[in-house]
Amino acid sequence: MIDLRSDTVTKPDERMRRAMYEAEVGDDVYGEDPTVNRLEERAAELLGKEAALFVTSGTQGNQIAGLVHCRPGQEVILESQAHIFLYEGGAMSALAGLQLKPIDGVRGAMDPTLVEAAIRGTDIHEPETGLICIENTHNKAGGAVLPVEHMKAIYEVAQRHGIPVHLDGARLFNAQAATGITVAEFARYTDTVQFCLSKGLGAPVGSIIAGSAEFIAKARKWRKRLGGGLRQVGVLAAPALLALEENPSRLVVDHEHAKLLADGISDLSTLQVINQVDTNILLVKLTNSDHTTEALLNHLRESKIVAGGFGPGIIRFVTHNGITKKDIQHVLHVLGQFF
Amino acid sequence: MIDLRSDTVTKPDERMRRAMYEAEVGDDVYGEDPTVNRLEERAAELLGKEAALFVTSGTQGNQIAGLVHCRPGQEVILESQAHIFLYEGGAMSALAGLQLKPIDGVRGAMDPTLVEAAIRGTDIHEPETGLICIENTHNKAGGAVLPVEHMKAIYEVAQRHGIPVHLDGARLFNAQAATGITVAEFARYTDTVQFCLSKGLGAPVGSIIAGSAEFIAKARKWRKRLGGGLRQVGVLAAPALLALEENPSRLVVDHEHAKLLADGISDLSTLQVINQVDTNILLVKLTNSDHTTEALLNHLRESKIVAGGFGPGIIRFVTHNGITKKDIQHVLHVLGQFF
Amino acid sequence: MIDLRSDTVTKPDERMRRAMYEAEVGDDVYGEDPTVNRLEERAAELLGKEAALFVTSGTQGNQIAGLVHCRPGQEVILESQAHIFLYEGGAMSALAGLQLKPIDGVRGAMDPTLVEAAIRGTDIHEPETGLICIENTHNKAGGAVLPVEHMKAIYEVAQRHGIPVHLDGARLFNAQAATGITVAEFARYTDTVQFCLSKGLGAPVGSIIAGSAEFIAKARKWRKRLGGGLRQVGVLAAPALLALEENPSRLVVDHEHAKLLADGISDLSTLQVINQVDTNILLVKLTNSDHTTEALLNHLRESKIVAGGFGPGIIRFVTHNGITKKDIQHVLHVLGQFF
Amino acid sequence: MIDLRSDTVTKPDERMRRAMYEAEVGDDVYGEDPTVNRLEERAAELLGKEAALFVTSGTQGNQIAGLVHCRPGQEVILESQAHIFLYEGGAMSALAGLQLKPIDGVRGAMDPTLVEAAIRGTDIHEPETGLICIENTHNKAGGAVLPVEHMKAIYEVAQRHGIPVHLDGARLFNAQAATGITVAEFARYTDTVQFCLSKGLGAPVGSIIAGSAEFIAKARKWRKRLGGGLRQVGVLAAPALLALEENPSRLVVDHEHAKLLADGISDLSTLQVINQVDTNILLVKLTNSDHTTEALLNHLRESKIVAGGFGPGIIRFVTHNGITKKDIQHVLHVLGQFF
Repeated sequence: MIDLRSDTVTKPDERMRRAMYEAEVGDDVYGEDPTVNRLEERAAELLGKEAALFVTSGTQGNQIAGLVHCRPGQEVILESQAHIFLYEGGAMSALAGLQLKPIDGVRGAMDPTLVEAAIRGTDIHEPETGLICIENTHNKAGGAVLPVEHMKAIYEVAQRHGIPVHLDGARLFNAQAATGITVAEFARYTDTVQFCLSKGLGAPVGSIIAGSAEFIAKARKWRKRLGGGLRQVGVLAAPALLALEENPSRLVVDHEHAKLLADGISDLSTLQVINQVDTNILLVKLTNSDHTTEALLNHLRESKIVAGGFGPGIIRFVTHNGITKKDIQHVLHVLGQFF
Repeated sequence: MIDLRSDTVTKPDERMRRAMYEAEVGDDVYGEDPTVNRLEERAAELLGKEAALFVTSGTQGNQIAGLVHCRPGQEVILESQAHIFLYEGGAMSALAGLQLKPIDGVRGAMDPTLVEAAIRGTDIHEPETGLICIENTHNKAGGAVLPVEHMKAIYEVAQRHGIPVHLDGARLFNAQAATGITVAEFARYTDTVQFCLSKGLGAPVGSIIAGSAEFIAKARKWRKRLGGGLRQVGVLAAPALLALEENPSRLVVDHEHAKLLADGISDLSTLQVINQVDTNILLVKLTNSDHTTEALLNHLRESKIVAGGFGPGIIRFVTHNGITKKDIQHVLHVLGQFF
Repeated sequence: MIDLRSDTVTKPDERMRRAMYEAEVGDDVYGEDPTVNRLEERAAELLGKEAALFVTSGTQGNQIAGLVHCRPGQEVILESQAHIFLYEGGAMSALAGLQLKPIDGVRGAMDPTLVEAAIRGTDIHEPETGLICIENTHNKAGGAVLPVEHMKAIYEVAQRHGIPVHLDGARLFNAQAATGITVAEFARYTDTVQFCLSKGLGAPVGSIIAGSAEFIAKARKWRKRLGGGLRQVGVLAAPALLALEENPSRLVVDHEHAKLLADGISDLSTLQVINQVDTNILLVKLTNSDHTTEALLNHLRESKIVAGGFGPGIIRFVTHNGITKKDIQHVLHVLGQFF
Repeated sequence: MIDLRSDTVTKPDERMRRAMYEAEVGDDVYGEDPTVNRLEERAAELLGKEAALFVTSGTQGNQIAGLVHCRPGQEVILESQAHIFLYEGGAMSALAGLQLKPIDGVRGAMDPTLVEAAIRGTDIHEPETGLICIENTHNKAGGAVLPVEHMKAIYEVAQRHGIPVHLDGARLFNAQAATGITVAEFARYTDTVQFCLSKGLGAPVGSIIAGSAEFIAKARKWRKRLGGGLRQVGVLAAPALLALEENPSRLVVDHEHAKLLADGISDLSTLQVINQVDTNILLVKLTNSDHTTEALLNHLRESKIVAGGFGPGIIRFVTHNGITKKDIQHVLHVLGQFF
C-alpha cells in the first residue's frame, strides 16, 4: 500500500519501537515520568517558550488554548478554512463556550487589516475578542507556509489590543523545513503554540502545547478535565523525543517528494495541481469534468495507492516518512494511466 | 428630540399605559396570568403555530431556540451579518455550546445552494448541523425583506436534511406591512419564530417565541433557567397585546416615512442611501470622504436629531411610531445644511 | 381566594399601577431609562454597594453572580437546600459550567468550619472553589434568618481564601424586618447580593443584583446574553421603586400574621409547625400519618384557601401583602375543621 | 522504593514492553489500528456490551458518559464521595453543563430509596435527572465492593424512571477478583461502564468505555472533541490487551497483600484500619492524636516507603503488581517502629 491520505498514517520505525521498549517511565499525573519531563523541556526549548505540555492530539492542544486563554462569551478570530473551525467537531464552542469568527484568508493567511477590523468593541451587544488563532503550515490551503513576517504583523495587531495569539502549528516543523527559519522564530510571534509529534515527525501518538509557565500550569488542569492526564506516558514520550530530535530535518525529503509528484502531474493533461506546493501537501483537480474524483480514487486503489477526497472535486496527496521516491514514480505512472 | 437610532426607543402611548394600569394579572410562573395567556394564544394564532411564549427580549427568544433545538457540539448555519452572530454577545456559543457557521448573503438572504453545501457530514471530525437561522426583515441589510419564496427554498433544504429552521423575526411584522403577505405565511417555512413586541409594534418590553407545543414546553424551562420566568407579567403583556392587535397596520406609515427620507436624501449630493429601502431602515453613506460620520452625527445632534453609526462610514436611520412626516421633513432640512 | 402558596403571588396595588401608568421611560439598553437608573442607584445605596442592576428575576440575578464571579471548572459551595441548588433548573452548571458543592446546614446556615473544610486545594484533580453562596432568609428552612454574625463568620473564611461571597437575598428585606438590622449590614459581609422586588415587597416583576462597579459592568453584559436587557423598563422600575421605598417596613405585618397562624396551629392536635417562624413562612406537618397533605390541601381549597406542598408530608404557608389578619383567622377556622 | 500511593504507579513489565515493541498499528482515527480494534472487541465481550472504545483515562471515559447520555441542564445522581464528584476537576459541570446531586452512601453504596427520592420531577424549577452514576469498587470508601444485588436495585430504580446508569468501574476487575462474580454480571445492571487498564491491570495508559453500539458511535465523536482521538494507538492497545487477558486473576494477590497489611496493622496499637478491606485499598488512622499523618508519612519515606494522605488524618495504602509479600512485611516492620 502506498498511503498518501495523510502524514498521520506514519508508523513508528524500529528505533522508535525500541525507544518505547526501553522507556524510563513514572506516573505523569504525579509529574514523575522522567521521559515526558525531558520531552516537555526539550519542546519548550526548541520553541523558545517557558514551558510545554504533552497532550494526546493536536485537537487537545488547540482546545486547551481556548479553555485557558478565554472565558465563555468571548470570540475567537481565525481563518475560515482553519482546522479548528472545520475539523474539531465544534469543540471550541462546545467545551469553552467561544464563538468563532472566521475570516477568509489568502493561502491560509488572514489580512492583518481585516483581523484588526474584526476585533470587537466594548459595546454591550458584542462578545469581546478573546483570542486570535493562526495555522501554519495551513492544511486546507495545501500545506502553505505563512511567512514569519505575516505572523509578526498579526502579532502586532494582537499586542496592540491586548489579545493573545495561539498558533495551531500541527505541521510547524514543515514550515521550518521549507524555509530554514526555526520553529522558535515562528513561535516568537505567538503566546502559545501547538505542534504534532505524530504527523511528519513520525511519532505514534501525541502533540505539544507550549507557552508561559503560568499558561502551562492551567493547561495541565484542563488536560486532566479532558481526560488527557495519562499515567506511564513515557512509553509515548520516548518515541516522541526521538521524533523531535531526529526527524525535523527529514521533512525536507517529504517536500522534495511532494514537488516531484507535483512536477509529474503538471505533465499530465488530465490533472491539475491547484496549490503552490510549499511543503508536503498537494491538492489536485481533474481537468475533465466528465471524470469524477471517485473514479480516480478507485483507479488508484486498484494499484494499491490511497489518497483522500478534500472537498468537492479535489484530491489531497500528503507525503511522509513512509513514502519513497520510487513510490512517487509509481504513483505518477498509475496516474498517467488514468484515461 | 427626533430619535432615529432605532425603533427600540418607542415609548408606550396613553392607551398602552392605561392597559398596564388596568391589566388583569396573576403569577405566570404558575401559569396563572390571564393576560399573558391571552397574548401567547393570540401570538400563536397569528403565526400559525401550536404554541407561543412571552420572553423578555428578542435575544432571549433566539437563545432559547438554540438551547432547545440543539445539543452542544452542533453547528448553526446563519447569514454572516445576522443579529445572532453580531449582536448577541456570542451567547449561542456561550450558553448552548454551538458553533456558528456564517454564510455571506445578498440583502440578508443566503443562497440555498450554499446553505445546502454548508451542511456537515457525519465524519467524526465534523460538528453536525443542528439548526439553520434566518433573519427577516434583516437589520444589517437595511431592513431588507426576505421573500417568502426564499424562505420556502431554505426550508426545503432544511427538511431534506432533517434540520430545524428558526426565524429571527424581530421585525417580521415589517415584512408583512411591506409585502401584504401575512406573518403566518412567512412563519410557515420555519419550525420556530421569534418576533419583537417592543420595536415597531411599540410595546415597552417583550418578544414572542413560537413553535410546536413540545418545543414551547421545553422553552418554558430554559426561559426559567435564563431568569426570564416572571411573576405578574400581565403588566407587560397587556400593552403587548394591544401592540399586537392594533399596530401591525401602522408600520406602513413608518415605511412611507423611511421612503420619504430616502427620496429626500437622493436629492442631496453629499449623501447616498446604500440600501434598497424595503421597510423602516435606511443606511446612508457620505459621498465626500473628507467628511466623517462623526461630524454628520454631531451636526444632527445640534438640531436635536439622533441617528446611529452602523459600521465604518455608515449611518443608520430607523423610523417608528415616534416619528412624524414633519419630523422627516425637518431631518431632510437639517441634512441639507450639512456642507 | 386566600392564596398562601408564596409571596410571589402578590398583585400590584393601585399606587403601583399608577406609578406604571405615569412612569418616565427610555431605552435601558442605551442606559437611558431614568426610572430604572433611579431604582438602581437607590438599591445600591440601600445595600451599601457601589452599583446595582435591575434583572427580571432572582434566578437571573443569581445566575449572573455565577457567570461573572467564576470560570467553568470551578466549584461553588452552598447550603444543600439552597434555592440555587434545588429550584433554578441546574442553571449554574448548565450556563456557567460550575460544579455545586452542597453542605448541610442548620436552619439554612452552613457551619463556617465545614465551609472552610470544603474549600478545595490546588491539586490537579480538584476544581478550584470559585464562590460561596448564602441564602438569607432561607426559603427551604422556613424563612429562617441567618444571623449577621453568621454571615460575618462565613465572609471571614471566604476572605482568608480569596473567594467571593454571593448572597441570594431574595427575601433579605424580611431579615431586616425580623431583626431590625439593615440590609446594608447583612450585605456588608458579601461581595454581591441579589434581592427580589416581586415577593414581599410587592412589585409585579424584578430583582436587583448589586456589587462593585466593575462587577455590575460585567453583569450588564451577561444580562444581555441571557436576554434580560429590556427596553422601556421604567414601566417595571416605577412600581419597583415604590416597593423599595415604602414596603420594607410593611413586612413586619406579614411576620405577625405568620406568627398568628403558627400560634393558632399549635393549638390544633392535628397539625404541627416544624419550623421556628422567624419571618413569613410556615412549614406544617400532619401529626396523624393516616391523613395526607393532599387531603388537607383539598380541604383548604374547598374553602378557597390555597397552600403548597413542600417536600414529602410538608405544607408551606407564606404570608404577604394580600393576606389580612382576618384571612389568617379564617384559615385557622378552616384548619380546625380538618378531621 | 515501595510505592503504595496508588495502583496507578504500576510500570509495564517486560512482556508489555515487548507487546508495544511488536504492536501491529494503524491510524485509529480512520478506524485502522488492528490492535485497538481487537482490544475494543475483547473488552466489549468481557463486559457483555455491544461495543467498546479505548479512551486515554478513566476521567475521559466518565466524562464521555455524561456528554453522551445527558443534555445541559440535567442533574446526575452520584455518591457524595464519588471520584467524578471529588477528583475530576468539576469536569462534568464544566464540559457537559450537568449539575451533580451527591447522596451520602454506606461503604460507597447509595440507598436505592434515597436515589429514587432524589429523582427530580417535571416542575419547571427542577433540572431533569439525566443519569445515575455508581462507582465499583469505590475508591474513597477504601476499595469497597458494591454487591451485585445493590447494583441491580439501583438499576431497577433507574429503569422505572427511564434514566440511564453509568458505572465508574475504574477498579471493576478488583470487584471481580474479590467476589468471583464476573465483570459482565456487574455490568449487566448498567447502560455504560468505564474501567481502567492502567491501575491494577498494569497497562501503562488507558481505559475502556462500553455500552450500546449507538452510544459508542456518539462517544467516538465526543472523544475526538476532547482530543482523545489518537493515531497509532496500537502501541498502547497492545500492552492493554495483554493486561486485560492475563492480569485480572492476578488481582487476587493484591487483595491478599492488602489483607496481610491490614492484619499486621491491627496488631499495632498506634494505627487503626478504618475500612473493611475488600480489595487492594487500606485506609489507616493514627490512634494517638498527638502524632500527625505528616510525621508517619515522613517516617515511611525515610525507609523508602511512600503512601498518600487521603483526607484529614487518613493515610491510604494501595497494593498492586509492583508490591510483593516481602514488601508488605517490610512495611509492617517500619510501621511498627513508629512511636
